[in-house]
Amino acid sequence: MKEVTLKEIAIELGISITTVSKALNNYSDVSPKTKAAVLKLVEQLNYKPNSFAVNLRTKESKTIGLIIPEIVHHFFSNIVNAIIEKAEKKGYLVIILQSNESEKLEKKQIDLLISKRVDGILMSLSNNTKNLDHLRKVIDHNIPLVLFDKISKLIDCSKVIINDRSAGYDATEHLIKSGCKKIAHIRGPLNPQNSIDRFLGYKKALTDYNLPFNNSLIFTCEKVSFEEGYNFAKKIYTEHKDVDGIFAITDLVGIGAVAYFNEVGIKIPQQIAIIGFSNWFMSTVISPSLSTIDQPGFEMGKNALKLLLKEIKAQKKEREFKYKTIVLPTHVIKRNSTSN
Amino acid sequence: MKEVTLKEIAIELGISITTVSKALNNYSDVSPKTKAAVLKLVEQLNYKPNSFAVNLRTKESKTIGLIIPEIVHHFFSNIVNAIIEKAEKKGYLVIILQSNESEKLEKKQIDLLISKRVDGILMSLSNNTKNLDHLRKVIDHNIPLVLFDKISKLIDCSKVIINDRSAGYDATEHLIKSGCKKIAHIRGPLNPQNSIDRFLGYKKALTDYNLPFNNSLIFTCEKVSFEEGYNFAKKIYTEHKDVDGIFAITDLVGIGAVAYFNEVGIKIPQQIAIIGFSNWFMSTVISPSLSTIDQPGFEMGKNALKLLLKEIKAQKKEREFKYKTIVLPTHVIKRNSTSN
Repeated sequence: MKEVTLKEIAIELGISITTVSKALNNYSDVSPKTKAAVLKLVEQLNYKPNSFAVNLRTKESKTIGLIIPEIVHHFFSNIVNAIIEKAEKKGYLVIILQSNESEKLEKKQIDLLISKRVDGILMSLSNNTKNLDHLRKVIDHNIPLVLFDKISKLIDCSKVIINDRSAGYDATEHLIKSGCKKIAHIRGPLNPQNSIDRFLGYKKALTDYNLPFNNSLIFTCEKVSFEEGYNFAKKIYTEHKDVDGIFAITDLVGIGAVAYFNEVGIKIPQQIAIIGFSNWFMSTVISPSLSTIDQPGFEMGKNALKLLLKEIKAQKKEREFKYKTIVLPTHVIKRNSTSN
Repeated sequence: MKEVTLKEIAIELGISITTVSKALNNYSDVSPKTKAAVLKLVEQLNYKPNSFAVNLRTKESKTIGLIIPEIVHHFFSNIVNAIIEKAEKKGYLVIILQSNESEKLEKKQIDLLISKRVDGILMSLSNNTKNLDHLRKVIDHNIPLVLFDKISKLIDCSKVIINDRSAGYDATEHLIKSGCKKIAHIRGPLNPQNSIDRFLGYKKALTDYNLPFNNSLIFTCEKVSFEEGYNFAKKIYTEHKDVDGIFAITDLVGIGAVAYFNEVGIKIPQQIAIIGFSNWFMSTVISPSLSTIDQPGFEMGKNALKLLLKEIKAQKKEREFKYKTIVLPTHVIKRNSTSN
């Protein structure tokens, strides 16, 4: 179909292009009769305003960029769900990019979003991101930026997080209160702040309850996968038969551990108790169901978007905006993989 | 930060705007020395080409619209994963919208994408979409459209699907060959073509193997949820004690049924065999693990994008393009919820 222009509408009705444009934008100096005629013709001709031209005028793209490490992940897909749903209600579209845990790809994606002139960027860092120049670039370009979940403390912008340290503490404390005396931790990679913090929470709980910290009971995932959970559980069972509790960095890793112990006939939680992190739906349907920490993905997405839109609005009105960090509450969900 | 323009770069270097533009686009009639000088200054000044202006010139937005019913769904998140990964490699960004199974929202989203002048639209229909005018509108606007998974046979465009009828047949045949004599089907909603087709496959397999079809053994999901699987399993167990096999419309529904039978101590597959559809990761970790049909989400996304980009390219070069329907192969994955 041929594109209809304002000019054609103007010629058809014998009025000026300016009048057509004013009618479409509901200016008060155009008569109701003319407005009605324009709107009727627009409808008939299937006219769509050229959004690029509109963009050039308003300097707004009405799009938001979202960069996450991985979309096929229950937690992130919940966040994406919240963001696209709420953004659409506010008239924004969302361009989603996936860094696949690569710093290089992340940098490229930031450049892409800057060149696309998005109105703002929401982002959760990849596990391998060490250099932060690309985030500073976003801020230098005056593009509102909100980090969520995997953030860097070195970047000055709004953030939405949970308190991973206290959540890690709570998970470990739950195992201790269930009677565990020797607790292993299958932790995340060394770099991301949230895996460091969960580990520190674990360590602090041991200290507070007078349990010895033993470095040989720390197992470090690279991919945070089901297979790693399975293999580390095997290692724990083979090399540390007296371990009676495991705190796993995520539910997926915890489910891998459950699968191993089920396979070799070790009773959960009687012989070994397991707690995960994140509350995937999957954790409710395995046997035994997995105790976990509730990590509020939908709430996180919703709040991150809210902060971003506030900053975009403030920028538009040239009002000062103070960066804000929202810390969402978490809690232990007790299921059948831990006793008490 | 102030935006840098081509003009400022030209003034700074004492050359024309055209030369700057040519240097940036690597034209051969600009000397390597000038090119190097322009690139160096561009880097220093952090210049970004204005993508709206570029869009106006090239009439391409280099963005693709993607509408799916639900993102927090293993199958769809796999599709999204494939699409954004492959699109990015080809220089396209993806705007993702979620119809939440609402025809009304779907229509609104199509209008949005048209007004955003996306270069093409990829789409899986909501379960409740009956009127198809909005799809015809996309085609009327000359915007390439590819439907995948949940499609309509009434729309003339490229499609990527599986053969749901033969896959439903295979699932049912697998139960029959495992020794089931009385097989119930927990089906999807009445409207979507794929749930109709899986049901027809089920019916055909019964006929071919001389098993009576009994309408009271058909249970219809509205939301295709875990809870519906659980509740229908309860109903089957209470009202049809002699049913020895269940074909569930998706793994999630099948997992709900497994949960119910586990709870009441019915042995799977000895007393009742269950097969799902879609091959979620979750199905491998429950006990017993769920037999299923492999539905290739990643392949589907990849192929849908490929067809769309081909059509976009053909349109750009004003070449004729013939719509194509790709039917991806599926197969039975045997696990512990079925015997033999």
